[in-house]
Amino acid sequence: MKKNPELRSHCPINYALEIFGDKWSLLIIRDIVFRGKDSFNQFKKSQEAIATNILATRLEKLLSWGILEKTANLEDGRKEHYHLTQKGLDLIPIILEMVLWSYEYDNDSEAKKIKKLVELIRKDNRKISEKVKKQVKEGIGIVYEYLDDQD
Amino acid sequence: MKKNPELRSHCPINYALEIFGDKWSLLIIRDIVFRGKDSFNQFKKSQEAIATNILATRLEKLLSWGILEKTANLEDGRKEHYHLTQKGLDLIPIILEMVLWSYEYDNDSEAKKIKKLVELIRKDNRKISEKVKKQVKEGIGIVYEYLDDQD
Repeated sequence: MKKNPELRSHCPINYALEIFGDKWSLLIIRDIVFRGKDSFNQFKKSQEAIATNILATRLEKLLSWGILEKTANLEDGRKEHYHLTQKGLDLIPIILEMVLWSYEYDNDSEAKKIKKLVELIRKDNRKISEKVKKQVKEGIGIVYEYLDDQD
Repeated sequence: MKKNPELRSHCPINYALEIFGDKWSLLIIRDIVFRGKDSFNQFKKSQEAIATNILATRLEKLLSWGILEKTANLEDGRKEHYHLTQKGLDLIPIILEMVLWSYEYDNDSEAKKIKKLVELIRKDNRKISEKVKKQVKEGIGIVYEYLDDQD
């Protein structure tokens, strides 16, 4: 693991922003959590069209901060798979809180299609976050449709 | 209000990131919420040393997305004051969730000095967020020390 650069401050908001305060890092984590993606080529196909060099830089950064870890494919050693560490999984409550906010303020939000999940987050973010973390650890990507059929 | 640029997608994570996915926007909001700041010159004095042009750009963007609103000083019309709109205030639960995460993972986090607040967030983010919103609306900046003496 590379040594992390010096922080501008140890304010807790700043610490978080230095690690994932950009337009892409949390989208990669979204792709892992909600879409079950785990490889460079899969991340590259995001609907927001991330550039290859930006994706590579962001993955390196997330690895160096201990948000992601990388393993080689057992069957094909050349392929690398990315997984969330516990530190990365613990970003899920922040991401779900962002879903609530966007649901509220973006009239065209895709979150309008996952009202059941939105309700669960509103009721108890911590509880649903633990459930999502467990499913991600078991390799189940939480797709929107799936969650809409859950209790 | 300027017309907002086209979004890369209406994914709720993406919407949030297009608005505040950068290293500075949430620090400005932190300064309003925790430090009671409301003017350009006050924001400029952040410990993270924001550049004047970046601060100006970020304030414009936050105004255009309806996160901040601006009023003229009654006594000195040249001075402008920035306030959080309801949309901006509703970012507080996200920010508090980030505090929890950084508290956990940054050994030198300043959040170690606000353990009581951290406990309150962990117990019920929604409840403490409503309290913080109310205080911000009343013009009370929540300073760390103050919250450490609260029940």
